[in-house]
Amino acid sequence: MKRLVVIAALVGAAPALADEGMWTYNNFPNAKVKEKYGFEPSQQWLEKLRLGAVRLAGGCSASFVSPDGLVMTNHHCARGCIEQLSTAKQDYLANGFYAKSQAEEKQCPAMEVNQLVEITDVTETLNKATQSLTGKQYSDTLKSEMAKVEKACSAGDDKVRCDVVTLYQGGKYNLYKYRRFQDVRLVFAPEHAIAFFGGDPDNFEFPRYDLDVTFVRVYQDKQPAKTPDYFKWSKSGAKENELTFVAGNPGKTSRALTIAELEYTRDVSMPKSLMYLSELRGMVTEFQKRGPEQKRISSNMLFGVENALKASKGRHEALLDKKFFATKVAAEQELRKKVDANPELKKKYAGAWEEIAKAEVQLGNLRKDLSYIEHGQGISSSLFSIAKTLVRAGEELPKDNGQRLREFNDANQPALKANLFSPAPIYPELEIARLTFSLTKLREELGAKHPFVKKVLGKESPEQVATRVVKGSKLTDVKARQALFDGGKKAVEASKDPMVQLALLADPDARAIRKKYEEDVESIIKKNSELVAKAKFDIYGTSQYPDATFSPRVSFGSVKGYTQNGEKVEPFTQMGGTFEHATGQDPYALPKSWVKSEKVVTASTPMNFVTTNDIIGGNSGSPVVNQNHEVVGLVFDGNIQSLGGEYGFDESVNRTVAVHSDAIIEALQKIYGANRVLEELRPGSTKVPPVKANPAG
Amino acid sequence: MKRLVVIAALVGAAPALADEGMWTYNNFPNAKVKEKYGFEPSQQWLEKLRLGAVRLAGGCSASFVSPDGLVMTNHHCARGCIEQLSTAKQDYLANGFYAKSQAEEKQCPAMEVNQLVEITDVTETLNKATQSLTGKQYSDTLKSEMAKVEKACSAGDDKVRCDVVTLYQGGKYNLYKYRRFQDVRLVFAPEHAIAFFGGDPDNFEFPRYDLDVTFVRVYQDKQPAKTPDYFKWSKSGAKENELTFVAGNPGKTSRALTIAELEYTRDVSMPKSLMYLSELRGMVTEFQKRGPEQKRISSNMLFGVENALKASKGRHEALLDKKFFATKVAAEQELRKKVDANPELKKKYAGAWEEIAKAEVQLGNLRKDLSYIEHGQGISSSLFSIAKTLVRAGEELPKDNGQRLREFNDANQPALKANLFSPAPIYPELEIARLTFSLTKLREELGAKHPFVKKVLGKESPEQVATRVVKGSKLTDVKARQALFDGGKKAVEASKDPMVQLALLADPDARAIRKKYEEDVESIIKKNSELVAKAKFDIYGTSQYPDATFSPRVSFGSVKGYTQNGEKVEPFTQMGGTFEHATGQDPYALPKSWVKSEKVVTASTPMNFVTTNDIIGGNSGSPVVNQNHEVVGLVFDGNIQSLGGEYGFDESVNRTVAVHSDAIIEALQKIYGANRVLEELRPGSTKVPPVKANPAG
Repeated sequence: MKRLVVIAALVGAAPALADEGMWTYNNFPNAKVKEKYGFEPSQQWLEKLRLGAVRLAGGCSASFVSPDGLVMTNHHCARGCIEQLSTAKQDYLANGFYAKSQAEEKQCPAMEVNQLVEITDVTETLNKATQSLTGKQYSDTLKSEMAKVEKACSAGDDKVRCDVVTLYQGGKYNLYKYRRFQDVRLVFAPEHAIAFFGGDPDNFEFPRYDLDVTFVRVYQDKQPAKTPDYFKWSKSGAKENELTFVAGNPGKTSRALTIAELEYTRDVSMPKSLMYLSELRGMVTEFQKRGPEQKRISSNMLFGVENALKASKGRHEALLDKKFFATKVAAEQELRKKVDANPELKKKYAGAWEEIAKAEVQLGNLRKDLSYIEHGQGISSSLFSIAKTLVRAGEELPKDNGQRLREFNDANQPALKANLFSPAPIYPELEIARLTFSLTKLREELGAKHPFVKKVLGKESPEQVATRVVKGSKLTDVKARQALFDGGKKAVEASKDPMVQLALLADPDARAIRKKYEEDVESIIKKNSELVAKAKFDIYGTSQYPDATFSPRVSFGSVKGYTQNGEKVEPFTQMGGTFEHATGQDPYALPKSWVKSEKVVTASTPMNFVTTNDIIGGNSGSPVVNQNHEVVGLVFDGNIQSLGGEYGFDESVNRTVAVHSDAIIEALQKIYGANRVLEELRPGSTKVPPVKANPAG
Repeated sequence: MKRLVVIAALVGAAPALADEGMWTYNNFPNAKVKEKYGFEPSQQWLEKLRLGAVRLAGGCSASFVSPDGLVMTNHHCARGCIEQLSTAKQDYLANGFYAKSQAEEKQCPAMEVNQLVEITDVTETLNKATQSLTGKQYSDTLKSEMAKVEKACSAGDDKVRCDVVTLYQGGKYNLYKYRRFQDVRLVFAPEHAIAFFGGDPDNFEFPRYDLDVTFVRVYQDKQPAKTPDYFKWSKSGAKENELTFVAGNPGKTSRALTIAELEYTRDVSMPKSLMYLSELRGMVTEFQKRGPEQKRISSNMLFGVENALKASKGRHEALLDKKFFATKVAAEQELRKKVDANPELKKKYAGAWEEIAKAEVQLGNLRKDLSYIEHGQGISSSLFSIAKTLVRAGEELPKDNGQRLREFNDANQPALKANLFSPAPIYPELEIARLTFSLTKLREELGAKHPFVKKVLGKESPEQVATRVVKGSKLTDVKARQALFDGGKKAVEASKDPMVQLALLADPDARAIRKKYEEDVESIIKKNSELVAKAKFDIYGTSQYPDATFSPRVSFGSVKGYTQNGEKVEPFTQMGGTFEHATGQDPYALPKSWVKSEKVVTASTPMNFVTTNDIIGGNSGSPVVNQNHEVVGLVFDGNIQSLGGEYGFDESVNRTVAVHSDAIIEALQKIYGANRVLEELRPGSTKVPPVKANPAG
């Protein structure tokens, strides 16, 4: 892995150079794009982009691709839904899914689509409220002010979602108002084998040959929603050197973190999480060998674990790169020197870095308890999460909106309920395995003598506890959850459900450690990060982009190959290459539909391609559009070098990996005969009857 | 984990302070021991110690405890043997083993005991031979000179083993001549449940309650060997503050490594190995759930993986401790400054650190190929190791002794053959699982496009290859191995055994990467480490101990508690505490024999204890003796703080953890009624009939 050889720029140290940046819609570097690419996006142009691109609340991006609510995203972003709709007999993950009529479109148990309709800067309002506060008072006030602003914005309408987004580590606060869709139905998904061709070995690699696409549709009042701000399909698709825009929701970057925070990540949290994920991966991989049904029910989990593991490895390697880390250290030292040199700035900001460093030490002390007691590494199970939500809902919902744990405030309730009451199946066998695993880690990490461990395990083994609470729980039934939710605290406390009882048992400790963390660590980091961000504004100005926060952003770039280990990597692969790379064995086994269609597919059709757009996890499913707002591709990955993008962007090797728009059309037409989707993407295109697929079968 | 708060001393930077040091028998700090403890071991005293303490060639320590070849070691050191002797019907790991008569003693399939009878300094001989050589020439010459010296020493006698031991990273070379025992038989082993009570959660922890003891016997010419230099049993056992000696074989420390080497370990090799072990652990843990027989056959492997993982974690944390690492950096800088200040020393030594640093960069480039192609992370299976040995034996044995790969030279052949022809059972189901796991990692780490990966996998999946080569192999049969070994290269190359064919396929690549490593990395590090060691001698003198190299060493210390997280930890636990800590659930479930005997065991009998002796992995099974050479305990672990001992010793918290001699007697007598062993340990002690065990059953 050749990585980060040249760091084009460091956020906050200087204006971003080259194609770097995950820009907000209200601070886009129009002039810079014009200078480099000769095209200047107007505010109107950006607005259309913002309205066509949407967010999947579960952690992905997507876009409207028809006026009737058709949404394009990645197969791996809709995997959860596809798996939840599957059964042992009807496995849509293995066989793909195509609704031949609108009536056949199947509702995803827990999918939420958000369209950003308005942005308001609320920095002054919040700053005024928290002025001169510190510690717990600061963060409590900030929290309740945010809740107030959000509530006023959504005004009790479930179809509106309002989030105060913390930008620049608190340097700015923007209120994002979304149109919210919670009725989302599956329209078309290819087989997992081609969506994720090459599997984990090829994940984050290029060249690639994946058809990682899925179409869903948003509904309003049981009818396809009207979505006039959709993207049209490009006739020609992406071309080499073409200017490309990616409109999506990058999840998290850490480019503006202080050295103390980066060191904590590199030396403490990252190694621990890499080991946890590795062990979990070993467990789930072997769990899959129990049989085909066990393989089916755990495959979404395994994908999530492997994907997170590979991404974390890349990030960790970036932080371990000494030269790269030295540039981060140098940037911080320069900033601090400039602050120290100006008495006024020094007075305002100089102490911030030290305060953050101290909070990181405190975080180190709390880490194990926080991860294992509150954050779910110690008691990991879908049923337990449900029980925990029920226990806390009983406690939190009667409180004033601003006083609740943040996930229970009014703005977050629709998402909360969608998850809580999702009819997605929960598999006891997998639940027991996960819970046994996590309880074993709980005992290992906190020690058998830890009071919480003793309380949870008693004289039972982790496996005994897991088996007892899963087998005895009725929470697999949505009605049982609804009854406890409606019954509130009293009903929950009276429940004999062993999973609820476990959640009740664990909750006081979990709340206590969370409180300690919020007061002793989080509030200090928040407050002082805000100061660091303001110092950067004062010194370097505001033509910077904020770290990613899973909120809508735009990046610009162009279709371009790169050099890896001295070899040139071409920007495109072709559909023919897909057949060449097939071995017949998972993860290089093509689905039957492809094998049958080899002869009718035009081998030279572009399959996947790379661009210099600056993206990160969360951008999966983003449309790649040209300057005419036409879809030329679909982001589904970054190359291995892009993983270091968490901490810095290197245009020479960081690449976005996308499905080419032509490959989607070619496959829908010649492999899947999915005319209903085709006609929606390119009206009139199916009038000429397509070549009959499956000539061999 | 409070660790390494005070580093008493750094090897090579200054004479060791306090109880630090894993000393060689020919450079023991007698005067220092006298100064601190009032007792001065004479050379004669040390010789008796050296002859009573033995090494288990597989990676542990032990001691003679009777004149008739009775050897005491840890249960976990004899685990492999115990598991190999077990079957699904007769599970000695679960039920323990006791040979009521000599005839019932069962031969361990592959155990070798070494008694160090003579030490000769051969530094000058080797230095003379390699004088002014560098690179490949240097290491080839060194290797062949070592082989020559070893061969002359053993003179073809299988009962003699001669190893040239590299001390002080090459500052000195000593020839160690051992009496070698290869007929070793199992005499007594308790149940695994009490030997490893508390399991992985309590591993490396204290207080502890483990009876981690096993007795074996060495035979010569089918009769119990005569071992006049044995240790007698102490009447009173270890007492608080008593002076204690540990005579054993610490495996490996890295206290004298350069900063470049430590950084490579911390940032590259250690994180990779922690992830590999974590994933393997997850896999094996879940494999155990396939059924009781699968649990039995994989339990030794799981123990090994978990033990290595926990130890590595502790070491990694030590290296990540910034304060500690700064002391290592400071020590190196001081040394280099002193070298630079003296023109003569500067000329001889100044370049060594930079050369090592460059070799580490090169190691980073080779790491993946080396680990996955040659070192077995990529093709991991007992049958494959056998096949690889057969392939290489055919190639190597016809060569001159000095020209062979080191493991095939004459001195190493007895051990090689013992492993190759071991009748220990090999379980195809576990083999397939391990091989599938490792081949999957091979593809993941080197990439699906790597030529070696393509060659090994072809169009098959890792699982298909693993299943095919394991199921098709006849190498589970010792006779088949013997035939191929006897038939030499021709027979091996003609073999249709798929495992042999896989080994033949892999060997050219494996040899090539090994050669590259030896030439571009190992020889450079060896040569320059020798220079660094000599610089230390020139500047700090010779009253230092060398890093551990799994060769016999002595450490001194005393029985002493410590303080952990502000709480005092008493130096002893009692047998009664064992019963108090039992929950009835693995790993806190006591075996039936113990449950039955609770009332007859004297609760106040000391169970485990801690001392300040400086030990490390490999010391397991070492006797703890008092100044009269009497056994007062049996080392079986170090506390969690001792794991950082890989890099430095902190007397305030580093502790050796041992089974108390009294607990062994009490258990043999009251729980196991193992009178034959008792009588041998303390002649005459069983004349008075012991209290009848098992009053309840």
